[in-house]
Amino acid sequence: MNDQHAIPPTPVEAFEPPYYMAVFTAVRAQDQSGYDETAARMEDLVKDVPGFLGMDLAQTPGGLGITVGYFRDADALTEWRCNAEHRVAQKRGQAQWYQSYTLHVAKVERSHGFARV
Amino acid sequence: MNDQHAIPPTPVEAFEPPYYMAVFTAVRAQDQSGYDETAARMEDLVKDVPGFLGMDLAQTPGGLGITVGYFRDADALTEWRCNAEHRVAQKRGQAQWYQSYTLHVAKVERSHGFARV
Repeated sequence: MNDQHAIPPTPVEAFEPPYYMAVFTAVRAQDQSGYDETAARMEDLVKDVPGFLGMDLAQTPGGLGITVGYFRDADALTEWRCNAEHRVAQKRGQAQWYQSYTLHVAKVERSHGFARV
Repeated sequence: MNDQHAIPPTPVEAFEPPYYMAVFTAVRAQDQSGYDETAARMEDLVKDVPGFLGMDLAQTPGGLGITVGYFRDADALTEWRCNAEHRVAQKRGQAQWYQSYTLHVAKVERSHGFARV
């Protein structure tokens, strides 16, 4: 997280549609033991999924967190969803880390980006 | 923002697919004068769009901000995109508030939610 504060991240770019996007919105529960290690491991692991395009993360302190994963197609997203280590993390998320969450899986129809010169 | 810290927000629920989602990921520029007022006004204004379902917001301090707007159909989203006051805000965003941003517009194919009891 220190790196994020030193150098603001760049938003993941707009890819050529169609592509897929998984939006995970969550409020954390009290017990966060082990969360950071698992989150770092998942961020690493997803990069090995063929068709993974990128990930955006934002966390309001004490509030809502939003993670957006971008994938080339529905198969890439399914592969990530069904990854064995990821499934263990999902179960632990429900059992321990999250107070509530919603997952929205969607096909991107259009996109664009802006960057100040 | 103070209310968000006092009472953690609930993630917007999983609606019955299909519905639409606009994901706006942004890094802010230096000059934020007028931003808070306009953001509050936009949050108010979008509620009047027929077919608007809800909005999730997360902001990493000094880092990435993610806004997700949910709409019943593509027409509802188009109405919001073309709203006159919103278009003025979009232009000011490019001219002043944002260092960079990406907008991904997508049709949600499946979704689910979880809440601890």
